[in-house]
Amino acid sequence: MKSAARELEEKGKAAKAASKKLAFLSTEVKNKALLNIADALTAKKEEILAANKTDYEAAKASGMSEAMLDRLLLTPSRLEAIAQDTRAVAALPDPVGEVFDMRTLPNGLQIGKKRVPLGVIGAIYESRPNVTIDISSLCIKSGNAVILRGGKEAINSNKALANVAQEACDRAGVPTGAIQFIESTERALVNEMLKMKGIIDLMIPRGGAELIKLVSENASMPVVAGGIGVCHTYVDKSADIDKAVAIAYNAKVQRPTVCNALDCILVHKEIAPVYLPAIAKEWAKAGVEMHCDKRAMAILKSVPSLKLVPATDEDWGKEYLSLKAAIKVVGSLDEALEHIEKYGSGHSEAIVTEDYSAAMRFLNEVDAACVYVNASTRFTDGGQFGLGAEIGISTQKFHARGPMALKELTSYKWIILGSGQVRP
Amino acid sequence: MKSAARELEEKGKAAKAASKKLAFLSTEVKNKALLNIADALTAKKEEILAANKTDYEAAKASGMSEAMLDRLLLTPSRLEAIAQDTRAVAALPDPVGEVFDMRTLPNGLQIGKKRVPLGVIGAIYESRPNVTIDISSLCIKSGNAVILRGGKEAINSNKALANVAQEACDRAGVPTGAIQFIESTERALVNEMLKMKGIIDLMIPRGGAELIKLVSENASMPVVAGGIGVCHTYVDKSADIDKAVAIAYNAKVQRPTVCNALDCILVHKEIAPVYLPAIAKEWAKAGVEMHCDKRAMAILKSVPSLKLVPATDEDWGKEYLSLKAAIKVVGSLDEALEHIEKYGSGHSEAIVTEDYSAAMRFLNEVDAACVYVNASTRFTDGGQFGLGAEIGISTQKFHARGPMALKELTSYKWIILGSGQVRP
Repeated sequence: MKSAARELEEKGKAAKAASKKLAFLSTEVKNKALLNIADALTAKKEEILAANKTDYEAAKASGMSEAMLDRLLLTPSRLEAIAQDTRAVAALPDPVGEVFDMRTLPNGLQIGKKRVPLGVIGAIYESRPNVTIDISSLCIKSGNAVILRGGKEAINSNKALANVAQEACDRAGVPTGAIQFIESTERALVNEMLKMKGIIDLMIPRGGAELIKLVSENASMPVVAGGIGVCHTYVDKSADIDKAVAIAYNAKVQRPTVCNALDCILVHKEIAPVYLPAIAKEWAKAGVEMHCDKRAMAILKSVPSLKLVPATDEDWGKEYLSLKAAIKVVGSLDEALEHIEKYGSGHSEAIVTEDYSAAMRFLNEVDAACVYVNASTRFTDGGQFGLGAEIGISTQKFHARGPMALKELTSYKWIILGSGQVRP
Repeated sequence: MKSAARELEEKGKAAKAASKKLAFLSTEVKNKALLNIADALTAKKEEILAANKTDYEAAKASGMSEAMLDRLLLTPSRLEAIAQDTRAVAALPDPVGEVFDMRTLPNGLQIGKKRVPLGVIGAIYESRPNVTIDISSLCIKSGNAVILRGGKEAINSNKALANVAQEACDRAGVPTGAIQFIESTERALVNEMLKMKGIIDLMIPRGGAELIKLVSENASMPVVAGGIGVCHTYVDKSADIDKAVAIAYNAKVQRPTVCNALDCILVHKEIAPVYLPAIAKEWAKAGVEMHCDKRAMAILKSVPSLKLVPATDEDWGKEYLSLKAAIKVVGSLDEALEHIEKYGSGHSEAIVTEDYSAAMRFLNEVDAACVYVNASTRFTDGGQFGLGAEIGISTQKFHARGPMALKELTSYKWIILGSGQVRP
């Protein structure tokens, strides 16, 4: 432990030193580094996938759940998608140095804000090895250094990916030390990292509820927490049935193991007799297990070949991360809004409706990071939102909310250009 | 203590309940409340000033320093200035509901951000009673509820001002409970407030270094800390002498007891023999005590009628809050930048120069909330920056930096308008 803690301290200092230079690094060099990373992901595909195979097989042997195994898995196409995201980040405007809100005051002072990096980002994450590259490329582009601490189960994959990123950055001329990867998997190191106020300027935990809680409660530096998604889709009485089926099907089935997947549909009682059998038949084909409240059960029990389970109190507010969904019939939009306020995690919530006023009320009144009308909650994602990639999805209101990418990794300073002004 | 803690809990719940309604309150009602407050400050001038007199005399009798007494004092003109700031806030655009960054993605999804309030703001502050009104009016305008905990030494002034604000809001139709004032001055209540995560969404400490430290280290909710201003003005070799004298004089003398006042001038060695006697003579007339490094002392010792003190290590990085200033002669812009990086508090830093490249380097390289060219650091202030008033000055990078006003008291949610889109 001692040597691991010393390693951490040294990496922290190196990251801090690199961050001072990174703040002034040219966009050209930063973009070159990102394109190098993207190319290297393809060029070094074999060794990355081999490292991932080691992790995957060990995890499978240890009895890891299907959902977690899916998160851990890298495939050539997933690797290519990561490379594409990295290229997309390279193609985005450099946030650093942007001057905004500039204006001239009556006394002639010109005053505005100039965007600057935060400094050193700490990332503590589990399973998904793509996070190693996503976070590294977003940090480099936004002029921040990063200290990466991935999960034990993905250590070989992460190490291979971090090596690729570091080498690619070195070749581009990024200051040495910009990307730090913690190789030790000792659990106690997380607590050491959380004490590094003054070195780490922002801590980003990505993973399960326990990790998020641990980091949020114990970090000495600011934290942006998120990732827990209890996502509802409310099918209003005036919903277009076809849209509502397509949206709920996509939200639940397209990738059920992630935070923006649907957990619960709330269906207006007037449309439930028509809508519920329609979505249930589609879900059944994909193997979705449906946890129904009494009214939904009454409607669905006569439909053949469904996996129906009576809902219990535990089904409301539950993040399934698997092919399960809760179904509740509600009497009104108000009841849906109340349910979402009570059980939602502030991540992504959707309404399907053709009613203008219902759509407006839902948009205004739901207090969540992402509020949708007539679209799948699966879109809550930095890449899908046009941000290139994402460093995480914030479910807090402070500093940043929803998918976080380049801009969310920056701060600003006020710049004031005078010609001798003094305060009267 | 028990009853005070219960009072706090009840006020917290009332503020939270009010915040849910405040988030949807019309701009019209919010502005009416602010104008009511401004009017009431004039109408109830006598009782506010009488309450302040009680505080002031008690503080004076207890031996409070001049700097603190000045912060505590309310005068008719200061009261009028507070009313003016409140009217200025009323005149500003309502930040809540602003939709920004809205665009249409290639798949037809319309996506953007909508500004929303943070919820409940906690404010713990010392001495300056104007904070009671500044914070209340900014919170109301930005749709937030607020829990105010002022200093013991200003309890009567704050109580009178909070009463004025609450009554004014009630008359305008603001939800009851929006402004909560803690009447108990028990110290332990501060610790109770810091535990109120889930009730208080953002804590703002305003006061001395000890208070800021206590709050930053112990708060369970996000904190925006600041207010410690160790402010330098660097007089470059190519400075215009007249501007440099006027700026340094203003920055030190105009109101020496506040955080944006000058603490240290750094003077290029080539201009020091001319500049230092010029500023020293002006400062001497105002009674400024000058703590000089050896080179400054060598230049100034022959000038008559100056209050000169040899500088010690403690003078660098010191926030005087009084008519004292440190003076250091530097060999280059680089030396000035290094000094500021080492000793600055990240608040406000200025350069006086006619040299374009020196100005640009200073603006880019100084890592502070507010970086000035050819102007007095005394401008670092929400009102002066055109923000109407300020809830505090952040010296951190996270969420907000520099003077914080309406926008800094908000977050946003992503809104996504679809027509049936699903994720491929």
